Amino acid sequence: MQAARLHEYTDEMDDALSIDTIDQPEADTSDAVVVEIEGAGWCQTDNHVIEGMWEQYMPQDLPMTLGHENAGTVVEVGEGVSTVSEGDSVICHTVMTCGTCRPCRLGNDMHCENIEFPGLSTDGGFAEYLRTNDRAVIPLPDDVDTVDIAPHADAGITAYHAVKLASQKLNPGEHAIVIGIGGLGHIGLQCLDAMSAATITAVDVKDSARSLADDLGAHHTLDPTAEDVAAEVDALTDSTGAHAVLDFVGSDETTDLAPDIVAGGGDHYVVGYGGHVHQPSQALVNGDFSYTGTLVGNYTELQELVALVERGDVDLRTSRRELGEINDVATELEHNEIEGRVVITP
Amino acid sequence: MQAARLHEYTDEMDDALSIDTIDQPEADTSDAVVVEIEGAGWCQTDNHVIEGMWEQYMPQDLPMTLGHENAGTVVEVGEGVSTVSEGDSVICHTVMTCGTCRPCRLGNDMHCENIEFPGLSTDGGFAEYLRTNDRAVIPLPDDVDTVDIAPHADAGITAYHAVKLASQKLNPGEHAIVIGIGGLGHIGLQCLDAMSAATITAVDVKDSARSLADDLGAHHTLDPTAEDVAAEVDALTDSTGAHAVLDFVGSDETTDLAPDIVAGGGDHYVVGYGGHVHQPSQALVNGDFSYTGTLVGNYTELQELVALVERGDVDLRTSRRELGEINDVATELEHNEIEGRVVITP
Amino acid sequence: MQAARLHEYTDEMDDALSIDTIDQPEADTSDAVVVEIEGAGWCQTDNHVIEGMWEQYMPQDLPMTLGHENAGTVVEVGEGVSTVSEGDSVICHTVMTCGTCRPCRLGNDMHCENIEFPGLSTDGGFAEYLRTNDRAVIPLPDDVDTVDIAPHADAGITAYHAVKLASQKLNPGEHAIVIGIGGLGHIGLQCLDAMSAATITAVDVKDSARSLADDLGAHHTLDPTAEDVAAEVDALTDSTGAHAVLDFVGSDETTDLAPDIVAGGGDHYVVGYGGHVHQPSQALVNGDFSYTGTLVGNYTELQELVALVERGDVDLRTSRRELGEINDVATELEHNEIEGRVVITP
Amino acid sequence: MQAARLHEYTDEMDDALSIDTIDQPEADTSDAVVVEIEGAGWCQTDNHVIEGMWEQYMPQDLPMTLGHENAGTVVEVGEGVSTVSEGDSVICHTVMTCGTCRPCRLGNDMHCENIEFPGLSTDGGFAEYLRTNDRAVIPLPDDVDTVDIAPHADAGITAYHAVKLASQKLNPGEHAIVIGIGGLGHIGLQCLDAMSAATITAVDVKDSARSLADDLGAHHTLDPTAEDVAAEVDALTDSTGAHAVLDFVGSDETTDLAPDIVAGGGDHYVVGYGGHVHQPSQALVNGDFSYTGTLVGNYTELQELVALVERGDVDLRTSRRELGEINDVATELEHNEIEGRVVITP
Repeated sequence: MQAARLHEYTDEMDDALSIDTIDQPEADTSDAVVVEIEGAGWCQTDNHVIEGMWEQYMPQDLPMTLGHENAGTVVEVGEGVSTVSEGDSVICHTVMTCGTCRPCRLGNDMHCENIEFPGLSTDGGFAEYLRTNDRAVIPLPDDVDTVDIAPHADAGITAYHAVKLASQKLNPGEHAIVIGIGGLGHIGLQCLDAMSAATITAVDVKDSARSLADDLGAHHTLDPTAEDVAAEVDALTDSTGAHAVLDFVGSDETTDLAPDIVAGGGDHYVVGYGGHVHQPSQALVNGDFSYTGTLVGNYTELQELVALVERGDVDLRTSRRELGEINDVATELEHNEIEGRVVITP
Repeated sequence: MQAARLHEYTDEMDDALSIDTIDQPEADTSDAVVVEIEGAGWCQTDNHVIEGMWEQYMPQDLPMTLGHENAGTVVEVGEGVSTVSEGDSVICHTVMTCGTCRPCRLGNDMHCENIEFPGLSTDGGFAEYLRTNDRAVIPLPDDVDTVDIAPHADAGITAYHAVKLASQKLNPGEHAIVIGIGGLGHIGLQCLDAMSAATITAVDVKDSARSLADDLGAHHTLDPTAEDVAAEVDALTDSTGAHAVLDFVGSDETTDLAPDIVAGGGDHYVVGYGGHVHQPSQALVNGDFSYTGTLVGNYTELQELVALVERGDVDLRTSRRELGEINDVATELEHNEIEGRVVITP
Repeated sequence: MQAARLHEYTDEMDDALSIDTIDQPEADTSDAVVVEIEGAGWCQTDNHVIEGMWEQYMPQDLPMTLGHENAGTVVEVGEGVSTVSEGDSVICHTVMTCGTCRPCRLGNDMHCENIEFPGLSTDGGFAEYLRTNDRAVIPLPDDVDTVDIAPHADAGITAYHAVKLASQKLNPGEHAIVIGIGGLGHIGLQCLDAMSAATITAVDVKDSARSLADDLGAHHTLDPTAEDVAAEVDALTDSTGAHAVLDFVGSDETTDLAPDIVAGGGDHYVVGYGGHVHQPSQALVNGDFSYTGTLVGNYTELQELVALVERGDVDLRTSRRELGEINDVATELEHNEIEGRVVITP
Repeated sequence: MQAARLHEYTDEMDDALSIDTIDQPEADTSDAVVVEIEGAGWCQTDNHVIEGMWEQYMPQDLPMTLGHENAGTVVEVGEGVSTVSEGDSVICHTVMTCGTCRPCRLGNDMHCENIEFPGLSTDGGFAEYLRTNDRAVIPLPDDVDTVDIAPHADAGITAYHAVKLASQKLNPGEHAIVIGIGGLGHIGLQCLDAMSAATITAVDVKDSARSLADDLGAHHTLDPTAEDVAAEVDALTDSTGAHAVLDFVGSDETTDLAPDIVAGGGDHYVVGYGGHVHQPSQALVNGDFSYTGTLVGNYTELQELVALVERGDVDLRTSRRELGEINDVATELEHNEIEGRVVITP
């Protein structure tokens, strides 16, 4: 089969992956599930994997097929699989988990002690077929298009997970700030609107992104290249600050806003990871706030997100591209030229 | 009356404060309470105020009397005071709050929109008398010694507040790490032991501090100058990490331990503020953990801490010093030569 | 001034209250606030007070002016009042609290140890003027009509409080049931829709009420006189049950539904109180669910509800009636002939 | 093998079960685990099963072997079992779960959509061998005696689960009441003491039970046959009431205490189920409290309880009896003649 694979870490996006012909995976264990990929979302994390940023966090054997936002049709299952059958349309939770360690028993899939991460630690879904497992697949309702929903497997659930943490603490009349209205942010914004009654301010450097935020329910938008974000937030919140900041960028500049924009007792959720968190400890103490890192989300959260999609609460902006164009996509994202989310259709 | 006052910011602790004769404060507003100070704890924050570290966070008019851990006897009250009467023994919550803003109505005293902080923004308790207000004072049971309990007004409640946050999420068999078994840490350790069934590891560079931790209920102790803390925590927790780290030091070195010692989904509470938090955003994302700054605690938490003291769950290690020795105390703390907590007895 | 007062407990609603001429209240304490009433909502609880149902729970000295959903304009304030001034439009939280007891310090106004409840334990707002206090009043934005908003003072906040508890535990795709789409229920339904992404089923015996529920965002409606509620909920939830039931009726019949309709780990919130809760303990144990009584809500929750109203998320259905018609209103509510909420305009 | 089986529902405990010779179970599915029983605790629920009280809640095919508190040694495993191997000492969580339904994925084992409950819905452990599954077994440390720990499988985890819910909301200085210091209650009391800093009052009609409560950490004890429990709780709590009541009896009398002893916002946990909950809805509303039913606990909570046992925080009072004496045990418990917990040793 055809698969887009990384052979060595590089900063050159236009030549990052090569389309190789490799063996089609098989359901070689009792819990294995082989999916014919219909859609696989491209993610900023794919750029970061290419650059080698995940090497120190994940075991990676190159060459490796990338792609961790996968959806398609089940074509083969191991004899112990109970969740799906051949022919089912599925979305694949990003990771394969064991189900028996304590984190799995608590529902914390992302902390599984025996985790495997297709596209980051094993072969992923920029290919005709993907091997995943029973615990990763969620059957889809008949009327859901697998290509349209694919990016929810990671972009969606990651945004949803952070928003869920935030919305559990946000009261009506309190303020939330969404930084970065791109692939994740435009989903997060809609989830926030559906799950809370907070006032939402969207921050993005791009006009088109702020305009998208307006369409998707933001009450205010700010352009950090033209406005003083801290002063504007101060004005919008009667000097209280925002009880939650959802930072889908995670750069030096965006994390540095926290002491000035987060309310006492509030949280700056670090979802994007473009740069560093750097503050005097005293700033965190005096401001009484947290930097809370968040990593994807659980299987049950993907079920909840699918429910939001079925309700019509989350409208995903996607464009479709062929497997052969994959390096163009990598390059365009690097140049911040992509609106919403690109889905590769092998 | 006599009062130890700061006239200008300095790094020279041995000459930091001068003992001045100033007017005794009066109950000049309806809610004012004047307390004759019997004990006022010396705190690392006093050193930091002297160094000017709080100037950017708090409005400060020098000269100013320091001292924010105060206890004594009420000698005068405004006509609207209902909580205490002349002659009552009291411990003073660190801050004066308004009671009408939304944070006050929610019980979040530290986020009061009209907060005043004796010893940091107004005259404090290293003096014969202190002016505070009705909402700050807690009457003490007859058998509680005001000198012994004074440090709980800040050291105690600050440690308690962070521990309370941590203990609400800690299950039996899970691991907590206490870094720095000094004035705050030795209280925090005991609160943690009383309020949770977590396994506790204490980390301190000083033999005497680790020995104190042993006495106060730590299950393990580590010396970061001789042991690899990350490797030891890994071994103690079967590679899971600690679900809570209570960092009473807050230096570059201690906050840098987080990615290696905090469990997925866990929290590194930043209570001390000796240095910086500095990490790639990706470290927070991949580790799925927070740096959570914590600032003192609420009035009701001081009530809860007084209840713990009455139960005999928290044993405060204090030594008493005269007002005239105050710069010696500042110097000794700077040199890390103090065990437990010093109380100034004017 | 004119005031509608209860002289003795009775079941005869058409002659329940008499319009008496009594002295206008004064701002006789430091924290007193006198409000000229513009709107005072009539509540099922007023019927219950007339019937004597609150006598055992609240100290009541008859004759007493009823009315606990009050809004109007401040006409006099005590010298210690800081929240409002003469001429301000205000909504009055139902109770007067002390601000110094531990529940008040925690923000739990309804558990104040020195609580006074106008219309239930002291003179209420079915009169030209009401005496309340500084801690009870919330200033209103200019464009909010005091008559329109009055019912939020109790009906609104009571519904909001229960919904807030429920929505903190409800995930997208999970089910909530609202029983009784009357004065409280039609508010609760809208709050639930604004604050959660749960699927909502409304239950009411009246066609007009179910039709209102449809308009206000319910996803399903059930008529308990024609349908088997337990069987329908089973079908709607794939046999899981509802994670939250908001019971604005609280009759023998509605509370008896719980074992059959509440999901394991879920809650049946008892807000209305028309009858009894009666179950074998084993039903609660096997079903692993709670009956959770809820009582009004806090001052800060009324602030949050006002924020929802300002956002346009809660549309209150009210009709206006003169003070002289008050016994007609009591009678009509007894006969279940009122849609939404009646506001008395003295 | 020998097994104690129920052939028909009866109120005659002295002749309730018969010792039959039946086939030894086999590991007939991929996830099956066969355990040679070394200890199986007798529980009040066994009496209730005999009386037919569970027939309407659980599918039951008589004859059925009772016994749901099981521990022993693994003797055979299905080929898909990964948690344990032949020869391992294990404690068995009470239920067999599927691992794939949403409640299982959330960690809520007791709400599994495909649950089987040995001793209540399938053959249990009053026998030489028990068939359970991979997801139910927890390997024990070498130094833990399987007979001693067996009752924790249900009595322990049920008490622990309720106490965990309560302790997450209990602050130092607040009050908890434990009703019934029998098999479950004496465990719950110790868990509460280990996991919170609440003040604990134990209520029991038996002198020996109150004396046991004293030994195990209760701060106060009350005899409801000689003292007015409501008046005493009022005095002990300065009229606030208890923030948590853990009712291990669940009779008409004990649940009826709630309106008089539970603090506003507090919870009456119904763990035992000897009678009914019966109150006017208004009592729950005015008291702003819940009746919260609780059912056993999750697998991860049994892990946490084992951790408490290893810490030495929970001392289980057990006595050992032969399988042939099983009807004597049933009779003695019916007559309230048993201290702590009886373990049957087949």
